Amino acid sequence: MRFTSEQRLDDGVLEREFTLGEIPGILWTPTSAPAPLVLLGHPGGLHRMYPRLVARARHSAAEGFATATIELPGSGGRPRSAIAEQARADLRRALEAGGPVDDEIVDRLILPLVDEAVPEWQAALDALLPLPEISGPVGYSGGVISIGVRLAVTEPRIAAAVLFAGSFVPRTTFQEARQVTIPLHVLLQWDDEGNDRQSALDLFDAFGSAEKTLHANTGGHTGVPQHAGDAAARFFTRHLAQDQTTGTPI
Amino acid sequence: MRFTSEQRLDDGVLEREFTLGEIPGILWTPTSAPAPLVLLGHPGGLHRMYPRLVARARHSAAEGFATATIELPGSGGRPRSAIAEQARADLRRALEAGGPVDDEIVDRLILPLVDEAVPEWQAALDALLPLPEISGPVGYSGGVISIGVRLAVTEPRIAAAVLFAGSFVPRTTFQEARQVTIPLHVLLQWDDEGNDRQSALDLFDAFGSAEKTLHANTGGHTGVPQHAGDAAARFFTRHLAQDQTTGTPI
Repeated sequence: MRFTSEQRLDDGVLEREFTLGEIPGILWTPTSAPAPLVLLGHPGGLHRMYPRLVARARHSAAEGFATATIELPGSGGRPRSAIAEQARADLRRALEAGGPVDDEIVDRLILPLVDEAVPEWQAALDALLPLPEISGPVGYSGGVISIGVRLAVTEPRIAAAVLFAGSFVPRTTFQEARQVTIPLHVLLQWDDEGNDRQSALDLFDAFGSAEKTLHANTGGHTGVPQHAGDAAARFFTRHLAQDQTTGTPI
Repeated sequence: MRFTSEQRLDDGVLEREFTLGEIPGILWTPTSAPAPLVLLGHPGGLHRMYPRLVARARHSAAEGFATATIELPGSGGRPRSAIAEQARADLRRALEAGGPVDDEIVDRLILPLVDEAVPEWQAALDALLPLPEISGPVGYSGGVISIGVRLAVTEPRIAAAVLFAGSFVPRTTFQEARQVTIPLHVLLQWDDEGNDRQSALDLFDAFGSAEKTLHANTGGHTGVPQHAGDAAARFFTRHLAQDQTTGTPI
């Protein structure tokens, strides 16, 4: 991992861009470092998503968390995948035709992305966790839900996850959801026009976690209310915040 | 309204039993009075419910709220209703037979209770709001969901409500739900063995409120986690807490 730029935001948060091999990423650390780390998921396109990401990073920093994110395969300046581009075109056609979207299209769109992205997020953890500003445990928040589910199942360093219910969930993700055991906090926008509400409720039901919470709010995809963000932050505080002296949860 | 007993709890909360005509009730006021009032709903049986009610009252007082509750018609020491007793016996038979419960039985069980209870809670408001320890606005929390819905629709002094998803919801309640416009915070225990989850989700969908939140948590009927109670308290703080000097929401 190589840091390529550094700036201190007006609230004292240190923002550093980095590259991990060819993958660009951003790390935000609060003044209260060392701090537990939350990985910020997103749908791809760091530059386009930057305003929302930095807002989440500042909010998390105020709660005592460091945050980091990396670009997704095929997004931003990263090489496009012919398979994903074809699947996206097929998806667009299916949506324009007004019909249901074949599982097969969803699989082609999402599964290669998950297969490629998850080891990259794990490599980011390998690079980030040794930094003196970062302490465990780690949370994962948002982004493509199938990536969050795969990480929750396969990456033992992730201790808790906030997931955003989204559409186009492969059947594989439902199967993996049953194997998830870490505490989950799932956000669902009740009136999300691009979201299959029943599918989101079925996925919530499928999660194997003994502690799981669904927060559903009125409003569309980008209308997550402030209080829902606050509740997600409190979820991480419950599960990640440690007394740095004793190592016991506060 | 006549106060019949008074004691100060160890956290400074003043607990006063009262009678409103023949109806027994309890009022809890925090040391920070005057305080906004939250009406504590329950399934009936003040004496049996007292441990849970006083816990909710203490929690609310710590957040700066006064709380009050009254006995339901036909519960505790209040006269039994022959109609309700018959409906309860029919319900028990239907449940023992393992079949679905006829809407007609649910109507006989719930609707007369709602018709009788709602004016009593309104009378309690008439008696409580002039007390110097109480300030507006008023919240309603929990209990029989059909009573909460009817109060939310018909009682303009109630500005926000926390509702517990429960079973045996008459079709009338679904119709009334569409007329509810106040902010709602709905709690659903995802694994509540005595609860029809789909019916609860349908009722949440039916509410007409522009701001409504569903918090679903793993666990059975009485397993509401501590953090869910905290979130409900924050909901009331957002909607009821006033700067007592200026009257503007904090």
